[in-house]
Amino acid sequence: MARIVMKFGGTSMAGIERIRHVAERVKREAAAGNQVAVVVSAMAGETDRLVQLCREAAPLYDTREYDVVVASGEQVTSGLLAITLQGMGVRASSYMGWQLPIRASHHTSGLIEEIDVEVLEKVFGDGRIAIIPGFQGVTAAGDVATLGRGGSDTSAVALAVAMKADRCDIYTDVDGVYTTDPRIAPRAKKLDYVTYEEMLELASVGAKVLQTRSVSLAMRFNMPLQVLSSFEDRPGTLIASEEQLATIEGPKMERNVVTGIAHDLNEAQVTLVGLPDQPGIVAGIFGPLADANVNVDMIVQSVTAAGHLSDLTFTVPRAALAHSLAELEKVRSTVGFTEIITDTNIAKVSAVGAGMRSNAGIAARMFRTLADRGINILAITTSEIKVSVLIAEEYTELAVRVLHTAFGLDAAQDQAGAAA
Amino acid sequence: MARIVMKFGGTSMAGIERIRHVAERVKREAAAGNQVAVVVSAMAGETDRLVQLCREAAPLYDTREYDVVVASGEQVTSGLLAITLQGMGVRASSYMGWQLPIRASHHTSGLIEEIDVEVLEKVFGDGRIAIIPGFQGVTAAGDVATLGRGGSDTSAVALAVAMKADRCDIYTDVDGVYTTDPRIAPRAKKLDYVTYEEMLELASVGAKVLQTRSVSLAMRFNMPLQVLSSFEDRPGTLIASEEQLATIEGPKMERNVVTGIAHDLNEAQVTLVGLPDQPGIVAGIFGPLADANVNVDMIVQSVTAAGHLSDLTFTVPRAALAHSLAELEKVRSTVGFTEIITDTNIAKVSAVGAGMRSNAGIAARMFRTLADRGINILAITTSEIKVSVLIAEEYTELAVRVLHTAFGLDAAQDQAGAAA
Repeated sequence: MARIVMKFGGTSMAGIERIRHVAERVKREAAAGNQVAVVVSAMAGETDRLVQLCREAAPLYDTREYDVVVASGEQVTSGLLAITLQGMGVRASSYMGWQLPIRASHHTSGLIEEIDVEVLEKVFGDGRIAIIPGFQGVTAAGDVATLGRGGSDTSAVALAVAMKADRCDIYTDVDGVYTTDPRIAPRAKKLDYVTYEEMLELASVGAKVLQTRSVSLAMRFNMPLQVLSSFEDRPGTLIASEEQLATIEGPKMERNVVTGIAHDLNEAQVTLVGLPDQPGIVAGIFGPLADANVNVDMIVQSVTAAGHLSDLTFTVPRAALAHSLAELEKVRSTVGFTEIITDTNIAKVSAVGAGMRSNAGIAARMFRTLADRGINILAITTSEIKVSVLIAEEYTELAVRVLHTAFGLDAAQDQAGAAA
Repeated sequence: MARIVMKFGGTSMAGIERIRHVAERVKREAAAGNQVAVVVSAMAGETDRLVQLCREAAPLYDTREYDVVVASGEQVTSGLLAITLQGMGVRASSYMGWQLPIRASHHTSGLIEEIDVEVLEKVFGDGRIAIIPGFQGVTAAGDVATLGRGGSDTSAVALAVAMKADRCDIYTDVDGVYTTDPRIAPRAKKLDYVTYEEMLELASVGAKVLQTRSVSLAMRFNMPLQVLSSFEDRPGTLIASEEQLATIEGPKMERNVVTGIAHDLNEAQVTLVGLPDQPGIVAGIFGPLADANVNVDMIVQSVTAAGHLSDLTFTVPRAALAHSLAELEKVRSTVGFTEIITDTNIAKVSAVGAGMRSNAGIAARMFRTLADRGINILAITTSEIKVSVLIAEEYTELAVRVLHTAFGLDAAQDQAGAAA
């Protein structure tokens, strides 16, 4: 008997027919004698619809009320999955974030602080299945909170850790983690194994399979994650520590210098024009953004002669752009910039690989490959295991494909056929 | 300064533009110095959509999980109205049923047992507006409960009673209570005043303006109700006790013998064939239905010679038909009927009027009027202030119009123009 968390994404929950398919998978795990908790997303498109309604209601929506609205999508799918399982003769009950409770730190992008597993232990003791809406929790004040877009993965991992699960299975609309997005590069290959660290970089730069926070959390508690297809019975990708992976039988992990190419279209570029060259100016800008929970990513400051005005360019998540601009307007007079220019037609493309640490030539090859295709690089960031470049959005697919080929990631023709 | 509950129905909440219009009305009441709590329905069509999803998931859905799903519609509109009001500079916060809490007795058609107003008093003390999702509460076990279809009216009245409001205003897509449905009979007249008792009969037989339970509750606590249009600034219909209405200045209430003609398409007819003629048989049928919270309405038992098999026909709400049949199947062998026949193509048409108590000729005129049009009467019920007949659904509109004319309710041609 194992204790398992199964998490199903929005595509897997889109409509009763698919929910029935999910229920069959859950039933199978339970019938094998396992204790199962299921974490579900809202139906595909539903959270977008709810977010759009909030935006139409007021551009600067109140985060407490936003959470009340958007948390409803997962509430609906939780109840529907419970009903579907019961219809198949499987005993299952849903528990909302406020019922367990799942304590979250704050609104719209809350961190999970604590999960009480008392109710879950009772559910397992009764031989029932617990269904938990992903993406939601409750604040200390007793209000509904959400965990930020994609937060259901984090809900699943946090729940797995709290209930001391043997593993956390993430069912999604892809059958694993690929060297890049197969819709862009048809010769992308599925990875059988990937370390937390590599996955973290692939996720954070937009591989879209798993939310970054969920991988960080799994890494911190050594919780093995499995990414699987909701629709096909095929092996997925196992994400674990190097130590855990070393104990697994089977083919050794191949270590390419670059493991994958990721891209991210969720960034917006903000340029502040005419900044005075004074100490403390940057803190006066990023401090308020940090206080407003806006993650600033790539930062480029134009070089000027001392004492002259300069420009500062940085990226923020597109979803946080309106909030960011409101925060920036508040400090415009004290910081002293003259203009704010925004651009949302940008993309971040990254090469990721644990092997990169010992290879300084990666960045150079990346720049040269892009320059050969006439792709202009707007900004660059590097870390120990990745190199990211900011480019015009229209070049995204081209950049991903040429880098995938340049780093020797293309599958042989027959493998590519299987992946398509 | 007055304390007011404002309740807005699904048509008033259907989309951001309409929610903005609602917010303007709420803002006006608050700006006049009133303490305001707003009760909202789900967007028009949303609850139907959610109920349909539950039915697709499993025909005999679990009521606890059904409530989790369907309560989400009001959660969404509550948050959206709060956001919209805040965008207009009005301070407003939403509180879910489980947050106040609003204690409900059981699932899917719960009765409101208690409302804690501590949070509301704090909200009013802060000068804020409270927004409460209608239709929902929380059980003693701490699970989401709903109050049955149309339960938002009841939420509003219960809230008005709990917070000792001066009145409860029900905003809807009609501008008041009419002598009958103006969509069927264009010469229907709006009533300026109606007593709780008359309204109760008009509502319970399908006038669709207010939920029966909400009127009963208002009557019990003498809470004045006002039915108003969400879309137009016109006087509505005031519903109060005869004593309260007598103190109001203005035109005296005209007392027609029949106040209105109502119709109801939400009933389903069930016939049990081949019942043994034994004592306790009827209790063996209606007892389990009552235990399953199914309201049985019209009952007709065929007359047979003693000791012979007979048939029993009765009506239940269409929504409860599947549940009712499941309950009946359980007692089939012990009760001993041979067949169950159902018919959902039926309608109940009623003549309602406080003056009817002193007029035995009403029923006779009703039967004669319908017979003249060749409309067959399947069943009859009478009470002190109404006569109801069950007919084939296809005759509904015709029956309503001829009865409206027969009882002298048709408006003069100019009045009818204003109502259309």
